[in-house]
Amino acid sequence: MSSDSLSATFAALADPTRRAILARLISGETSVTKLAEPFQMSLPAISKHLKVLERAGLIARGREAQWRPCRIEVNALKPVDDWLENYRRLWEERFDRLDVYLRELQAQESEGQSETSSQKPQKPKKETKHGRKK
Amino acid sequence: MSSDSLSATFAALADPTRRAILARLISGETSVTKLAEPFQMSLPAISKHLKVLERAGLIARGREAQWRPCRIEVNALKPVDDWLENYRRLWEERFDRLDVYLRELQAQESEGQSETSSQKPQKPKKETKHGRKK
Repeated sequence: MSSDSLSATFAALADPTRRAILARLISGETSVTKLAEPFQMSLPAISKHLKVLERAGLIARGREAQWRPCRIEVNALKPVDDWLENYRRLWEERFDRLDVYLRELQAQESEGQSETSSQKPQKPKKETKHGRKK
Repeated sequence: MSSDSLSATFAALADPTRRAILARLISGETSVTKLAEPFQMSLPAISKHLKVLERAGLIARGREAQWRPCRIEVNALKPVDDWLENYRRLWEERFDRLDVYLRELQAQESEGQSETSSQKPQKPKKETKHGRKK
């Protein structure tokens, strides 16, 4: 199920060590030993995190018997980006509405200031909105 | 810690029911009862999911005593979008490289086909790249 695979991706990302491992792999593939260096963790603990990332498809391991380098599988993050799309649209819409509102406020203010000036641009009639009755 | 708050966000998103609840809230705030309708779940089970979402800051509840509508707090998803940025850059770079490679292949092919044609555009000299020696 694709929704389960997205859940596995989110679950894999819900840990700061695993996100730090992914961040490290942005700059290239590396060995488990090298990956473990910056963490105050045993190799088995790191290996456990790597298994979670591997099961979620976020990393892959090389086939070389002795040196099985980890590399990031960045395409596995695309479903997260796609999932975000609807929400991104929502916050952009809200931001746009806020922007419009602030511009209106600004326009009203500068209108108030130029109330006495002679050359006033035609003012559009405001629609009246009735508030909810209590 | 901001990394823990990001972990909480990812953990909250690692469940298809919670993601479905968020998706439902895109179209506006609603009551818990309404939210529960499409799911084969008890109200307490839904409430548990709502609590996870609320703790992660992804939803907020109204203050009205009887009807405490849920609404999405879409800004809580921005840190996820920000976190994705470096990875997005990575997959775009890879895509660009693939694109360049495919164009080169195409150019080579059409070069091969027009080898015998008389009006050949000036061909830029190819830089020689030495492969790694074995």
